[in-house]
Amino acid sequence: MSKTPGSRRPKAETPKGFRDYFGPEVTARKAMLDKIAAVYHRYGFDALETSAVETVEALGKFLPDVDRPNEGVFAWQEDTDWLALRYDLTAPLARVAAQYRQDLPTPYRRYAMGPVWRNEKPGPGRFRQFYQCDADTVGAASVAADAEICAMLADALEEVGIPRGDYVIRVNNRKVLNGVMEVAGIWDPADPSKFEHERGIVLRAIDKLDRLGVEGVRALLGEGRKDESGDFTKGAGLGAAQADVVLAFVGANDQVKLMLASDVGKSPKEADFLRRGAAEQANSPSALDLSQREAFGSVWNISVINHLADLVKQSAVGNEGVSELLDIANILESQGYGPDRIIIDPSVVRGLGYYTGPVFEAELTFEILDEKGRPRQFGSVAGGGRYDDLVKRFTGQAVPATGVSIGVDRLLAALAAKGRIDTDAQGPVVVTVMDRERMSDYMGMVAELRAAGIRAEAYLGNPKNFGNQLKYADKRQSPIAIIQGGDEAARGVVQVKDLILGAKIAAEASVEEWKSQPAQVEVPLSDLVQTVRDILDRHR
Amino acid sequence: MSKTPGSRRPKAETPKGFRDYFGPEVTARKAMLDKIAAVYHRYGFDALETSAVETVEALGKFLPDVDRPNEGVFAWQEDTDWLALRYDLTAPLARVAAQYRQDLPTPYRRYAMGPVWRNEKPGPGRFRQFYQCDADTVGAASVAADAEICAMLADALEEVGIPRGDYVIRVNNRKVLNGVMEVAGIWDPADPSKFEHERGIVLRAIDKLDRLGVEGVRALLGEGRKDESGDFTKGAGLGAAQADVVLAFVGANDQVKLMLASDVGKSPKEADFLRRGAAEQANSPSALDLSQREAFGSVWNISVINHLADLVKQSAVGNEGVSELLDIANILESQGYGPDRIIIDPSVVRGLGYYTGPVFEAELTFEILDEKGRPRQFGSVAGGGRYDDLVKRFTGQAVPATGVSIGVDRLLAALAAKGRIDTDAQGPVVVTVMDRERMSDYMGMVAELRAAGIRAEAYLGNPKNFGNQLKYADKRQSPIAIIQGGDEAARGVVQVKDLILGAKIAAEASVEEWKSQPAQVEVPLSDLVQTVRDILDRHR
Repeated sequence: MSKTPGSRRPKAETPKGFRDYFGPEVTARKAMLDKIAAVYHRYGFDALETSAVETVEALGKFLPDVDRPNEGVFAWQEDTDWLALRYDLTAPLARVAAQYRQDLPTPYRRYAMGPVWRNEKPGPGRFRQFYQCDADTVGAASVAADAEICAMLADALEEVGIPRGDYVIRVNNRKVLNGVMEVAGIWDPADPSKFEHERGIVLRAIDKLDRLGVEGVRALLGEGRKDESGDFTKGAGLGAAQADVVLAFVGANDQVKLMLASDVGKSPKEADFLRRGAAEQANSPSALDLSQREAFGSVWNISVINHLADLVKQSAVGNEGVSELLDIANILESQGYGPDRIIIDPSVVRGLGYYTGPVFEAELTFEILDEKGRPRQFGSVAGGGRYDDLVKRFTGQAVPATGVSIGVDRLLAALAAKGRIDTDAQGPVVVTVMDRERMSDYMGMVAELRAAGIRAEAYLGNPKNFGNQLKYADKRQSPIAIIQGGDEAARGVVQVKDLILGAKIAAEASVEEWKSQPAQVEVPLSDLVQTVRDILDRHR
Repeated sequence: MSKTPGSRRPKAETPKGFRDYFGPEVTARKAMLDKIAAVYHRYGFDALETSAVETVEALGKFLPDVDRPNEGVFAWQEDTDWLALRYDLTAPLARVAAQYRQDLPTPYRRYAMGPVWRNEKPGPGRFRQFYQCDADTVGAASVAADAEICAMLADALEEVGIPRGDYVIRVNNRKVLNGVMEVAGIWDPADPSKFEHERGIVLRAIDKLDRLGVEGVRALLGEGRKDESGDFTKGAGLGAAQADVVLAFVGANDQVKLMLASDVGKSPKEADFLRRGAAEQANSPSALDLSQREAFGSVWNISVINHLADLVKQSAVGNEGVSELLDIANILESQGYGPDRIIIDPSVVRGLGYYTGPVFEAELTFEILDEKGRPRQFGSVAGGGRYDDLVKRFTGQAVPATGVSIGVDRLLAALAAKGRIDTDAQGPVVVTVMDRERMSDYMGMVAELRAAGIRAEAYLGNPKNFGNQLKYADKRQSPIAIIQGGDEAARGVVQVKDLILGAKIAAEASVEEWKSQPAQVEVPLSDLVQTVRDILDRHR
């Protein structure tokens, strides 16, 4: 066999790390994205679909000092340019905001949904093409824009089927974080690059709070930490007083919980339960005790913000950050988004690479079982924040921007876990073919069903083996099969076979109630549509 | 400045031949594709979304005898493999049909919608990324599958807004074409590669019938043709008798028109009008004269098929083709798809590269003005046919398949030409910001409007210049602006400004009727939602 690829039989395979999506996988995602798009639209955001291909230059994905693109993108050379597939939806937005700055409204609110590509090592559940769903406001300096994105995210989650109380949107501010670092002595406003290494360790330590607990984080803030396997991770080298400042910061929510709990004579766990309780009432407007909810709202978020204000009062940037958080909390409160949905939470430290102000994260709080059968919280499904420097790359002018990205696959998985996805999408009614010469008759029945809005098709494979036709109907998850042999045709009747009922009878043959219901009925051809409709309604 | 791309300011540009889609461009396409998907779904087709990236090997896009991909695709090397962006949706389907052949139902009906990429020279209106919208049935040898695709295409066109009578689906059969070639002496069933060159010229000549007329085609079938500029195109070298066979074939429709016209004592033009007349009646079921329509149906399509049968009666493959066309016409007829929607038309010669049986094309018959202001028919928006060899590349086994591809941009352009697209999609109600300190109040109004399902937003730019806020509302095509200064806030009222009415008044200041309608009203804050809703309803 020749080594020329053209001359041997090609392998029928997706490239490594890529996959195909079939039927309900496509339609369930589409249904979810349609609902999110409707919310984004109601908030005044306009759709934008950029090309999948960008210049590597516009993506900013050239390796420093080398005339080659970053290996994280799929890139190829065309004449003197390098082109690449977009790796997110934010970089193309920055390019569009710069390219069309004369024509776009300011602020420009846009949403975008579509695949992005990462040239990374694939792993289980990690693909090199996946969907993102973003909304951003470009050109709005006001934190009202950040507050709006948080409210919109809450609405979007509820719209797709995550009930209130099953999610919380946590809001923090990069400036408060900088203020804490300043107070702790590892941020110098006059020289922002100083202590960058230490701050990196601190951020990563905070991010591990859930897993390591307070003492584990304290060790990482100080000299370092030895994990169970004996491996040692070097710490940030902070003194005890410095570490206390950082820990007080990330623990602000717990502090407030303790304080509120002692105020009302409850345990911290009960206080948290109370916060969620307000959420459940809020679900049912008639039962809504507004004064209680509002009181609770002010108490919770304002208490956290007060606590933070105390911590950073010696830092100018910290004060600015606290003031922004207060604005956000007030704006959200005035729209009815209290701490049952959106809370101020200093422990949120997400990809802070390019964020410059508020950051936020949507977390699903219901439990699922992990791969070892242990219950754990579902976790984060969306995040974002304010980034003011992305457009500047192109124009030299700083443009304030804020936005959110929803992890489409994560959210779909959450909906599946909550039983909110119709994975058993119904197959078509299958009109079987008893008599190859009467194809026109069968196609006529199908046309009648379709004209009545019923999903239907004739069996178009080789009709010789009737068993294959029923197997096909089974594989298609057909609810009903239609049968008409020569005898039935002569008498002007059809057999209508209820496949769902048939399967039930087969599975539970002993159940009395099935016996009285025939799984197959003979009806006049003129009653075909009505009979099918009745059966479909019965199974709805 | 250094030559390293990373160190200079990047250009904010899409790569050459690519473009971005904004707002209504995205939503109008999506709305159209959603309607088409609903039809495909009703016909029993399942969604499939393959990865954008394929191996060049699977695409079959390696250059012959060279270990490099075809230049028509965007490709890059990864380790030893070449990867590429898909250039259509058919090649990935063939790969999927082979890869999952054990799991997919047979026949497998799938639809797919999404971008494809062509590494071709861009031109005006020609982009290197564009949408396709395909439906195919894999594994069905019966021409009932082809007939079904034609009916589905007709339904899809009507569903998106092309009225019956404004389109026609033309059906031909590659086998009949081969039969005609055989009768004309330029196809030898025993040696299909013989006369390939001549047949190529004949096919291209037939394709030019519209432009060159019968005599022009006759010249190209014979020695050749000199065009107006004096350029000579060498012909196929057929003798007069051979050319007559081919011309009789492509003229079958006109022959039938003449025949029918003389039958009913009408001119050919009137006969064509009659065919369409049936279509107009069919639009209104109550007025439908079924017997007339059916009679017309049998007359038209059956007459054409009879004519073809005469022409190819000495060719086995020709007879087979005629018999398939008859089956298709009968199946369609039995479902009510007569010649008002689908006609047998031997002049359809589309990309016959891989087609092996029936071929079809959807043509829009209404007139638009071309770039020089001359009326011309809109033309083709979709096409397809039967291809039985694509899956064989992978598995070695022939798998019968048939399908259609809709030109998404062409069809969108047609809908725009018919005024069927809401390009003036309504912008949001804009709540202006008079008083920066009361952002919470403004956001509260917005939240109320959104909760009532009304698209709304607060102005989030710098509020200092109020004129800019109204300019922004104008740019967003906002129907209404809300204004509340300190004075209004103190009195618990808002100003509601009807921007649509305002624009009308400004444009036609002299029209009496506007004067009585105030473009701005002051209402209690509690009436905000109802007032906005009333104005929106008035402009609906």
